[in-house]
Amino acid sequence: MDAVPSSDRRCKVSVFFKELFYGFVTEYETPKIVAIHSYTMTILLRILQIVLLLYSIFYLFLNEKGYQKQDSSIISSVTLKVKGIGHSRTANNETFTFDGSDYIVPPSENNAIFIMTNFIQTDQVRTKCRESPSVSEAICTKHSDCQNKPYNPNINGRWTGRCIMRPKVNQFNAENTTKNQTTGLCELQGWCPVQDDRQVATFIEEVGNFTIFIKNFIEFPAFHVKHKNMVEHLKPCIFHPVEEKDCPIFRLDYILNEAEKDDHERGLMLRLGGVIRVKIDWDCNLDRSIKLCKPVYSFARLDTKFQEEKFSLGFNFRFSSNWKYNRRYLRALTKAYGLRLIICVSGKAGKFDFITLTLNTGSLIGIFGMATFFCDIILLNLTKKASLYRDFVYQRVNIDASRSNSVSQRI
Amino acid sequence: MDAVPSSDRRCKVSVFFKELFYGFVTEYETPKIVAIHSYTMTILLRILQIVLLLYSIFYLFLNEKGYQKQDSSIISSVTLKVKGIGHSRTANNETFTFDGSDYIVPPSENNAIFIMTNFIQTDQVRTKCRESPSVSEAICTKHSDCQNKPYNPNINGRWTGRCIMRPKVNQFNAENTTKNQTTGLCELQGWCPVQDDRQVATFIEEVGNFTIFIKNFIEFPAFHVKHKNMVEHLKPCIFHPVEEKDCPIFRLDYILNEAEKDDHERGLMLRLGGVIRVKIDWDCNLDRSIKLCKPVYSFARLDTKFQEEKFSLGFNFRFSSNWKYNRRYLRALTKAYGLRLIICVSGKAGKFDFITLTLNTGSLIGIFGMATFFCDIILLNLTKKASLYRDFVYQRVNIDASRSNSVSQRI
Amino acid sequence: MDAVPSSDRRCKVSVFFKELFYGFVTEYETPKIVAIHSYTMTILLRILQIVLLLYSIFYLFLNEKGYQKQDSSIISSVTLKVKGIGHSRTANNETFTFDGSDYIVPPSENNAIFIMTNFIQTDQVRTKCRESPSVSEAICTKHSDCQNKPYNPNINGRWTGRCIMRPKVNQFNAENTTKNQTTGLCELQGWCPVQDDRQVATFIEEVGNFTIFIKNFIEFPAFHVKHKNMVEHLKPCIFHPVEEKDCPIFRLDYILNEAEKDDHERGLMLRLGGVIRVKIDWDCNLDRSIKLCKPVYSFARLDTKFQEEKFSLGFNFRFSSNWKYNRRYLRALTKAYGLRLIICVSGKAGKFDFITLTLNTGSLIGIFGMATFFCDIILLNLTKKASLYRDFVYQRVNIDASRSNSVSQRI
Repeated sequence: MDAVPSSDRRCKVSVFFKELFYGFVTEYETPKIVAIHSYTMTILLRILQIVLLLYSIFYLFLNEKGYQKQDSSIISSVTLKVKGIGHSRTANNETFTFDGSDYIVPPSENNAIFIMTNFIQTDQVRTKCRESPSVSEAICTKHSDCQNKPYNPNINGRWTGRCIMRPKVNQFNAENTTKNQTTGLCELQGWCPVQDDRQVATFIEEVGNFTIFIKNFIEFPAFHVKHKNMVEHLKPCIFHPVEEKDCPIFRLDYILNEAEKDDHERGLMLRLGGVIRVKIDWDCNLDRSIKLCKPVYSFARLDTKFQEEKFSLGFNFRFSSNWKYNRRYLRALTKAYGLRLIICVSGKAGKFDFITLTLNTGSLIGIFGMATFFCDIILLNLTKKASLYRDFVYQRVNIDASRSNSVSQRI
Repeated sequence: MDAVPSSDRRCKVSVFFKELFYGFVTEYETPKIVAIHSYTMTILLRILQIVLLLYSIFYLFLNEKGYQKQDSSIISSVTLKVKGIGHSRTANNETFTFDGSDYIVPPSENNAIFIMTNFIQTDQVRTKCRESPSVSEAICTKHSDCQNKPYNPNINGRWTGRCIMRPKVNQFNAENTTKNQTTGLCELQGWCPVQDDRQVATFIEEVGNFTIFIKNFIEFPAFHVKHKNMVEHLKPCIFHPVEEKDCPIFRLDYILNEAEKDDHERGLMLRLGGVIRVKIDWDCNLDRSIKLCKPVYSFARLDTKFQEEKFSLGFNFRFSSNWKYNRRYLRALTKAYGLRLIICVSGKAGKFDFITLTLNTGSLIGIFGMATFFCDIILLNLTKKASLYRDFVYQRVNIDASRSNSVSQRI
Repeated sequence: MDAVPSSDRRCKVSVFFKELFYGFVTEYETPKIVAIHSYTMTILLRILQIVLLLYSIFYLFLNEKGYQKQDSSIISSVTLKVKGIGHSRTANNETFTFDGSDYIVPPSENNAIFIMTNFIQTDQVRTKCRESPSVSEAICTKHSDCQNKPYNPNINGRWTGRCIMRPKVNQFNAENTTKNQTTGLCELQGWCPVQDDRQVATFIEEVGNFTIFIKNFIEFPAFHVKHKNMVEHLKPCIFHPVEEKDCPIFRLDYILNEAEKDDHERGLMLRLGGVIRVKIDWDCNLDRSIKLCKPVYSFARLDTKFQEEKFSLGFNFRFSSNWKYNRRYLRALTKAYGLRLIICVSGKAGKFDFITLTLNTGSLIGIFGMATFFCDIILLNLTKKASLYRDFVYQRVNIDASRSNSVSQRI
């Protein structure tokens, strides 16, 4: 490109890199600081710095434990054991008792349990019978009323297309005779007789006295720590918020009371069903003994109050026991209302960690810079002597204006 | 150590600390700034700063809501209610109908539901019978063929060690006679007769018309806010992506269509089973009314397509109804194929928070520093007047070279 | 306020803003740097910077993949398939076999499975009978002993208030005659006969040979990526940590061995039940092919060892099969001991992301500042020539002292 011989150029390049390296290992670079003698500004800066320092230490280090590596991923296993015998009085003055395998459906669930408190049971057989009168479309006067109907999710079986005038008296449930004999009900093929929701349900008494043993095993995989919510040498006990706060066995009454304060609502929950979330909250400081880490239990209702909700209230589902007899399909269909408990386990653990401490100390230094940033704005713009200070802080350079007289600063 | 008397030394120390404290409260320190008069570099810097500012404001503050405390820990409870009657036509032209407690197995699950769409049912009794011909190891010509076999997970019962030549005609299922009577099948002790997977399954029709009511109650524990996916005064409805987007009742056909676009695959899913995930996504801005926060539903197939997978396709499991009659153990074993819906609830909530705003503003200031950092690299290294600028920006100090003439800078 | 006419003042304001804007677009501001010629300090600073740089690059960029957007929210679906036939020998030398639908209760669960390994089954009917002798409160000598008792969760039915002296011989279980005929047991109304926990349980053999096929479908919603734990063209296989590490079919023996090393404890787990967590850990680098991403399986026991725990050990629950015969309620109550497997799926995925790279590079520059910060403390306070250096680095300004002689710095 130019006339310089290549050896000379190479020499120049090598000199440049030599100088660069020489500068790199001998030139210590640090920002030049202007130290302005001013009581008011300095006091303001110091107060700001002290406030930030105290805030950082208290909030970041003591409250948020900034010296600890925190981890909130938790592996949890919950096993639930319900004890108690419920009972109910039937129409013909018989007493029925219900134990765990009667009222817990299904017998085992992951992080949830359903306790049946009220139910309607109907013994059914696969045959043909009248539709339920609660399905308004089923009311008919002639066979054609029961034919070519659009799909209706509320029907209880496949309609045969016939209209039955007088109710067949079935062998299991004695039905009330319909008042108006001029209208009938469509015939269906399916499980008969149809379950009648208007029927009096069987309410299980003493549910409040049931006890639930919540066994919770947890693991913090990041710290390879395992723990459980049972103290060593656990004895039979009942949880009490003051006297027995380490006991993981709860009376259902206590849970219901915590979740819903209103008596009337609580009564409706037992009759129509409800959803309660049981939160188990772990906050473990692994710098101390793991045995000191104990969970906090809290109970809250997850569904809406009955007085607020009109559509699809409570909690219920249907299940059946099936068997066969004389080649006929038989089942006992149960519409179960009850309490659904959903267990939510959350937690976090913290342990002293050097890298976390370093990073948080680093960001604390960064916060210090903010104090200077804000004070500079005041000092260089809003004080009386602002322009004077600016002349000291800013060194004005104007190369283009004049080479010789380039520096327009005071010094 | 040295000859200075201790009182004098103490005085010196006290003077040092006095000066340190005096300096601490009166010396305001701020970095000295070099203000270089240069159109091009300044414009470049300003553009960079404006771009960073706009990016920060739009991305961090408007898009990511940097003024809000965000929390994505959500407590959720899902209850599912399926309505609809399925039916099937049996071999002897009988119609069977299936309601919820027939096709939902188990009757209640946490965050999941299984809807049976196709099944093989076998009535069994505990006795001895032939192994299934689909177990290739069971084909035998003599008793020794059925003895001392290694453990095989596919067998249907404990082998007795006998080889049975002609199939016993059993009372429940009429078996097809084996073509080759010279080979037999090993005898087993267990539930008899063995369920035959080659048997024609009973396909439940009208499954697409079933409706699923997804009740989802959520809670953001960090903000003590509860919400649900049902609007106030909810009326019976069917979800439609445009007309009824607040309705939490879905037709199964709609879900299937969303999860799998291919007709043929969809048909196979109903016959061989499939897994669909239902995602309910909440993104709540708690600075506005909670009633404005509505979930987004999405449906996707989680299992692999049948055309891609050959081994262990679809979704099926076996369950049984057990009873006893005349001291004999009886059961109806059902191999159920069907749709498994897994509900995933995720969500985040944000609320204005002063500390979050402060921290994000602080990091915004930090981003400003990056603009200066990049421009400095250009200014001091890549511009024509770089060495000139360097002389102004850097104040070179060399104490060791000569005390009197220590400053080697221009000024 | 003052005598300056408003037009003149307006002019001043406009001039001020003009100057401000002129300065804004022409004054390039950068901190003034003091470059001190010092071998030792510079070397120290460089070493510190290089250490920080290497640490940042290795830790942040290579180890933590700081150039990738990371996301650990994962949607997972687990379906489990257990194969194998267990058997047991009953008292009267009969062999009973158990298949999947016998030992898996309930037949399908979300992210969990229970495999029954040991059980006590009692055929019961709704009637009146003696309380279990293991309920100490039930031992009585007269009817009043069985009346007005406080609520006891351990009872097996509703007490009628009568004391029965000699045990009724029942048709199902042959009870041992009580030694002391002077004391009786309270009568209860409920399911009879009461299940006797002291009865010899039926242990299911060959459980260790069962195989579990864990099908895990995952989705990273942030990256719209789906994956599964089965390789393409999967063939029947059994997991082996070295030879078959991609096979998702596990022998129960292998899982038990991994979860519990102690032989004796393992035996007790099969007899009394236990809880095992199966962790499936995904760590996907989406910059490479998704097919290369494979899960890591790990098995650990979640409940406490039997030798440590005395109260409520193992894992068991009760379930029943219900039916009716001759209008009488019958059931087979099973107290099931067994292995509860809880599947935990966790995972994270990372993909190259420009914004993440930028932000991490920015914080790397911030870390560089820390090196200067620490070296400055040493240079300006702890070195011999500290006061000399301070004079260069700090430019002392004292406006108040004297206007003319305000600058008290060396230069």
